[in-house]
Amino acid sequence: MTQIFDNPAEFADDALDGFVAANRNYVARVDGGVVRSTEVPAGQVALVVGGGSGHYPAFAGLVGPGLAAGSACGNMFASPAAGQVYRVAKAANAGGGVLLSYGNYAGDVLHFGQAQLRLNAEGIETRTVTVTDDIASAPIDQLEKRRGIAGDLTVFKIAGAAAEAGLNLDEVERLAIKTNYRTRSLGVAFDGCTLPGAKEPLFHVPAGQMSLGLGIHGEPGISEHPMPTASELAELLVSKLLADKPDDAGDRVVAIVNGLGTVKYDELFLLFGKIEKLLSAEGLTIVEPECGELVTSLDMSGLSLTLLWLDEELEQYWSAPADTPAFRKGSMAPRAARTQAIADDAEATETEQATPAAAELGQQAVALLAQVRDVVVEHEEELGKLDAIAGDGDHGIGMRRGVDAAAAAGEAASGSSVARILLAAGEAWSEKAGGTSGALWGSAVIAAGQALGNRDSYTDADARAAVTAFANAITELGKAEPGDKTMVDALLPFRDTFLAELDGGASANQALSAAAAAAESAAAATADLRPLKGRARPLAEKSLGHPDPGAVSFGLIVNRISQFIDSQLATAASAPAGNGATE
Amino acid sequence: MTQIFDNPAEFADDALDGFVAANRNYVARVDGGVVRSTEVPAGQVALVVGGGSGHYPAFAGLVGPGLAAGSACGNMFASPAAGQVYRVAKAANAGGGVLLSYGNYAGDVLHFGQAQLRLNAEGIETRTVTVTDDIASAPIDQLEKRRGIAGDLTVFKIAGAAAEAGLNLDEVERLAIKTNYRTRSLGVAFDGCTLPGAKEPLFHVPAGQMSLGLGIHGEPGISEHPMPTASELAELLVSKLLADKPDDAGDRVVAIVNGLGTVKYDELFLLFGKIEKLLSAEGLTIVEPECGELVTSLDMSGLSLTLLWLDEELEQYWSAPADTPAFRKGSMAPRAARTQAIADDAEATETEQATPAAAELGQQAVALLAQVRDVVVEHEEELGKLDAIAGDGDHGIGMRRGVDAAAAAGEAASGSSVARILLAAGEAWSEKAGGTSGALWGSAVIAAGQALGNRDSYTDADARAAVTAFANAITELGKAEPGDKTMVDALLPFRDTFLAELDGGASANQALSAAAAAAESAAAATADLRPLKGRARPLAEKSLGHPDPGAVSFGLIVNRISQFIDSQLATAASAPAGNGATE
Repeated sequence: MTQIFDNPAEFADDALDGFVAANRNYVARVDGGVVRSTEVPAGQVALVVGGGSGHYPAFAGLVGPGLAAGSACGNMFASPAAGQVYRVAKAANAGGGVLLSYGNYAGDVLHFGQAQLRLNAEGIETRTVTVTDDIASAPIDQLEKRRGIAGDLTVFKIAGAAAEAGLNLDEVERLAIKTNYRTRSLGVAFDGCTLPGAKEPLFHVPAGQMSLGLGIHGEPGISEHPMPTASELAELLVSKLLADKPDDAGDRVVAIVNGLGTVKYDELFLLFGKIEKLLSAEGLTIVEPECGELVTSLDMSGLSLTLLWLDEELEQYWSAPADTPAFRKGSMAPRAARTQAIADDAEATETEQATPAAAELGQQAVALLAQVRDVVVEHEEELGKLDAIAGDGDHGIGMRRGVDAAAAAGEAASGSSVARILLAAGEAWSEKAGGTSGALWGSAVIAAGQALGNRDSYTDADARAAVTAFANAITELGKAEPGDKTMVDALLPFRDTFLAELDGGASANQALSAAAAAAESAAAATADLRPLKGRARPLAEKSLGHPDPGAVSFGLIVNRISQFIDSQLATAASAPAGNGATE
Repeated sequence: MTQIFDNPAEFADDALDGFVAANRNYVARVDGGVVRSTEVPAGQVALVVGGGSGHYPAFAGLVGPGLAAGSACGNMFASPAAGQVYRVAKAANAGGGVLLSYGNYAGDVLHFGQAQLRLNAEGIETRTVTVTDDIASAPIDQLEKRRGIAGDLTVFKIAGAAAEAGLNLDEVERLAIKTNYRTRSLGVAFDGCTLPGAKEPLFHVPAGQMSLGLGIHGEPGISEHPMPTASELAELLVSKLLADKPDDAGDRVVAIVNGLGTVKYDELFLLFGKIEKLLSAEGLTIVEPECGELVTSLDMSGLSLTLLWLDEELEQYWSAPADTPAFRKGSMAPRAARTQAIADDAEATETEQATPAAAELGQQAVALLAQVRDVVVEHEEELGKLDAIAGDGDHGIGMRRGVDAAAAAGEAASGSSVARILLAAGEAWSEKAGGTSGALWGSAVIAAGQALGNRDSYTDADARAAVTAFANAITELGKAEPGDKTMVDALLPFRDTFLAELDGGASANQALSAAAAAAESAAAATADLRPLKGRARPLAEKSLGHPDPGAVSFGLIVNRISQFIDSQLATAASAPAGNGATE
């Protein structure tokens, strides 16, 4: 039962403030998470970790010399938004580039991915290694689909030590990939955890039962068992992990017994003792093991065993010192406090010079955002009902939250260029909407803004670039294919029509009008598709005969934009209908 | 719910083995607990801590350079036996003397006290500082009656740092006393914890309620409250602790928010943030705070706030580095592994030379122990029933466990002197009986054995010394007064009659016979007493009209001993009835 709070809605933020207050010699708060409060040597690779809150010491507890340079901290069990990741990484960057590392969950992949695009676009070289240690979550031939659990610690530790040793981004990335490949975990759960303000656990395991491989947010496991003895449990975990060991495993291994919250220390030690005997009997040497609460899940009752199959270089970095709020190892020389001020908002430090003409174009973007908000508000209920047929019914409210925030953020940025206004709007959309579609829309809006840049006028070539960037952002991050019954099934016909019309000599607003019509028809046609990806997959049959809500909302939005531009052009009758520049 | 184990009865031992397996670079197992596995500089004071298991990281998790030199580890929530404390202290001692420190609970006071007597008797200078930080357990004018909770950490940390700095035993003791005096804690509980194998928690707090000051084993608190917000809870804890602050408190303070098991990290941090603001608003500076699980109580739902009011020297030692399995601070140079072998059983290293005559006397002690066992077995049920009237009914079974173990240990030591046989018997009694009466009997048997020593024959003066030592051990450790309705009400008439009879010229066996009769009458006379101390106190009225079971069992035992000696003398008719030495 999670019960210490003032307002459950502010729990994660309040807890993060308190964490920083208790650890000022280690961490400083930035918008979106924490970075080290001590000096990072110039040119050192910055390891930036993160994920949802509620997993302490993952992730903020692992920030300090020899480990992470920063942590992006999402809401309870929710990915940090892309803007949060971006800002933390920017504050953590010491000139050596950034390695993003986090557990392989869809939301995190989206948001960290979006941040990586932005960081790279700004010239901060950024790579990603997702942690995929949980052998219960996918078979061994689909390692890349596995989710990350306590193996976060081994990957972060070795990447952090490599960064501390002065290795470059290529090498730090290589070691993180190797460590992840050689790290295998398996967990068991005895009962679920409660989110702040909730009266009941997020999930339950029947009393007297143990669920093997149940995820830390209640994701389904492999099998159910009557509660075993400690010796039986040790045998089960060890045998499953040994059966899954990597081909090139040696005989030196790190063993980590991790408690998820309410399986306490004496129990973890007792189990560790049994596990040590079994591993030793297999001829394995256990190197610098860990036994405690390292990656938790609020007050979840459960534990996991992680094995990291060492080689010489991994052992060197595993054994290296580290000094963080929750993970301290060896003798680390004290580090001076950071002298460079940490900007509370990394972007605020870059000032933009927009000409009156550029600001006027920005104002048109603000007006467009207001239209997007209006059309979503008008259709919120309808989108929600459509999503409820085969999904969780939150598409209407989620889009509403996103566009409300985007329109307000755009408005607040009035006076800036199109690029800056769409950046503010996209970030707000992504952060406030939550979920996959919010992240995709936010990312796409930002990408379109970056393509348009800070200019005094736009050509058809700019429009072409913006639409292409918008579509690419969604396909790259969302990874849905045509026919998967997602927003992509309306997006690609929209893009293709728009580009073809321009190629055929149409003006940009004519092309937009045709493209919007194509999107609307394509959205309607998704009714015939069987979902393979996205929100409706679990209820594929129910969704047949109904269009995909994400495709529908996309069609609605691009049609409204087209109509608004047409009406603007009609009003401003003196202006030509288009620039007419064709290739 | 504590549920990871093979056999609940072996939980504590199994967990301790696993703890050592996970922390071999810090700790080594000895009979009774753990000591450092690294070198302790010769002449350094050895801080030996301990208490019941189930409170990790207290106590074994705090063993390492800059903190404790050893930890005596009792069963779940039960004091270690005196022999365990003694053996751990002996293995931990580096020639600079021993400081014993532990929370102020009756069982710990008895067993650590008994160990201290033995260590000092053997020339290992030993002092004790009990921790009394819990302001809920007694008013401010009775500081010495308060129990110890998370304040263990501040006292241990500063004493350990002082020892590490090379201070002598006087100085380490002085700093520990000062730290304890300046440490105040207050805890709250939301629900109880379950012992291994138990189906239900040891105690409950009603749902939605909070108990202020409830002890970590369920000892009664101050008051019950509806569940507060985090801000209200912070306000409550801070205001109560500030109202209890020591007279010479300054404006620099260590704040420790400690979770008892299932109140998790984010909640603790959130509360810490609120507390920090309140303390800062009082003009206080918070120095190197701690926020986490530092002194737990299995899976208990609760937390505490501790304030240590610093002065210059305390701050210096609080800030000093430490490196233990669960508490790591600052940069501590690596310490070499211990080269001197740790004897698994500290006593085994001392061999005894008993002459055939001394061994023959030892054999008589073995025979006497068998008689003691027989008389307790014969009366086990009766003693249990008597205890059930106003107590918990376990006096019969407790005495039975004690004498069974004592007789077997004495038998196993056959061939040794009386001193060695009574030492083995007393240790076994104390360890196996558990509880107060077991500790008192064990300690008294050992004290009598030490008075008798390793000799070829005994005089009346030896008998006088043995009876006196036996009685002193019980009155010193048990601290009961005549009239409190305890074993002491039979013991003192026994001792006084024995000494008076010898003074009057009686032989030792005549004196014993008279003393045993006096004990039996005095035990019967306790029926008229109203209990002020000991097991029957909570049900004082019910006990009126029934004698105290501890006094009764004492009377039964000394009478059987007297009868047995008489029968032995009658059989060995050639021997004189006594040595007749009078003063």
